[in-house]
Amino acid sequence: MRYDIAIIGAGPAGLSAALNSKVRNKSVIIFGTDSKKITQTRSIRNYLGFGEISGKDLNENFKKSLAGYPIERSSKRVKTVYAMGKYFALEIENEDMMIEASSVIIATGIELARDLENEEKFFARGVNYCATCDAALYRGKKVVIIGYNQESIEDANFTSEIVEKVTFVNMTKKEVKLNDSIEVIEGEIPLGFEGENHADKLIFKSGKEIEADGFFIIKDSSKPERLIPSIKLDGNHILVNRDLETSIKGLFAAGDITGKPYQIAKAVGEGQIAGLNAASYLSSL
Amino acid sequence: MRYDIAIIGAGPAGLSAALNSKVRNKSVIIFGTDSKKITQTRSIRNYLGFGEISGKDLNENFKKSLAGYPIERSSKRVKTVYAMGKYFALEIENEDMMIEASSVIIATGIELARDLENEEKFFARGVNYCATCDAALYRGKKVVIIGYNQESIEDANFTSEIVEKVTFVNMTKKEVKLNDSIEVIEGEIPLGFEGENHADKLIFKSGKEIEADGFFIIKDSSKPERLIPSIKLDGNHILVNRDLETSIKGLFAAGDITGKPYQIAKAVGEGQIAGLNAASYLSSL
Repeated sequence: MRYDIAIIGAGPAGLSAALNSKVRNKSVIIFGTDSKKITQTRSIRNYLGFGEISGKDLNENFKKSLAGYPIERSSKRVKTVYAMGKYFALEIENEDMMIEASSVIIATGIELARDLENEEKFFARGVNYCATCDAALYRGKKVVIIGYNQESIEDANFTSEIVEKVTFVNMTKKEVKLNDSIEVIEGEIPLGFEGENHADKLIFKSGKEIEADGFFIIKDSSKPERLIPSIKLDGNHILVNRDLETSIKGLFAAGDITGKPYQIAKAVGEGQIAGLNAASYLSSL
Repeated sequence: MRYDIAIIGAGPAGLSAALNSKVRNKSVIIFGTDSKKITQTRSIRNYLGFGEISGKDLNENFKKSLAGYPIERSSKRVKTVYAMGKYFALEIENEDMMIEASSVIIATGIELARDLENEEKFFARGVNYCATCDAALYRGKKVVIIGYNQESIEDANFTSEIVEKVTFVNMTKKEVKLNDSIEVIEGEIPLGFEGENHADKLIFKSGKEIEADGFFIIKDSSKPERLIPSIKLDGNHILVNRDLETSIKGLFAAGDITGKPYQIAKAVGEGQIAGLNAASYLSSL
């Protein structure tokens, strides 16, 4: 049996792609498990239609949208996607048989490299990656931003308008221009976090420490795995056009894997475009 | 007073742009009234997070998302947007004073030309523009598709899998290849619709008539008004890149005005990207 559309990734982009492919009457299989990036986010306020909602609850609502449709789910890992001309063959971990699909949508998200000590342990418990999403949690409190890129400078300025005090650990290797109220730490190398149930201290290689209520790590993400041999990349992301077509005919991508902003509404919108365009592509075969 | 961001259009793209600009702490004014295209849609099933919901209810949820934020609203019509270098001046209908904003987001949607008799009267009451959205309303019933473009052919095939019978009125000026079950009408010119509270008959210039339960008009939309002198277009749409930047610095566009698919999740996602990127643009000034 050959599926019309295989979707790799079950975050907001993958689920939206599945919903929109089903609305166009296609047979669909989704590979992947719930997005931890969402389910571990305490508060989301910028997905239109919901007020403030926890990531866990929003994800439940997402899954409910699909409940009425016959969509196959698999939690197995797709190792490689091979383009065979008029169809794709998916190699699945620990499976002998390949899975075939006429079209594929890549919605795997981006793995943010996590390399400070206890960074993963305290993720969403004092350690955050998105100032746009989470700065408001620290209203009236102290925040440390460990900034590796241009975006982190904007984030520091924006966050300083909201919280009591921002300390900026400058990892950009450049001089930075920040709001006057922001304290800048230069020439220190962060090692990791300490705390009980919640990160409350950042430790540096020199032995220096800073206490704060929240810590933001703002850096470019790691390269995506080479899931698809020979696909064209744009930096760390899969190169797509406005129709979410990749460099391989019949292969689409949506969500964080196609580029910034790493946000839910963007991912859902792209999932929709990819799902509808994959359905159109099938009609053209 | 100069606003940080002026948003023209209060449909899903405009509201999402406003929400995301506010999350980034910017001062925002939205021009426009509720999108009729949404409020008159009986059933929406492909905006992730909601099951089946009426357009009216979904729009209320959208507006609730903004309720907690200080966002200025105006129902006045913006006549022209002038790019002044570091800011924009908006000429408002029946107002002497221009409104100034550092950045502008165009989210006006697309006006579909409505030119058959009673087309507007019966819109959403037997006359529809989106087979993806509404074909399921006519399960087991008779549908006429008046098709002007390539998309209408795909829509006819897709709809024929769902409804009892599809008649395709071929306005494409080409020979069409359709599923065998579809009846094709060639060389007739549609004039308008008849019915009591609901369109139930399509009348042709020749005097011929077809009765059906639903009618879909699938055509390319009219050119957008030249709201912004000298902006670059892409066919009927405003030309944008993946960051939703237009050809004018500081001016962004989102939603139907940037191109197909004309769908809500796509508009909300683009509104988010435009809102966040407009906020970043302001930091760069």
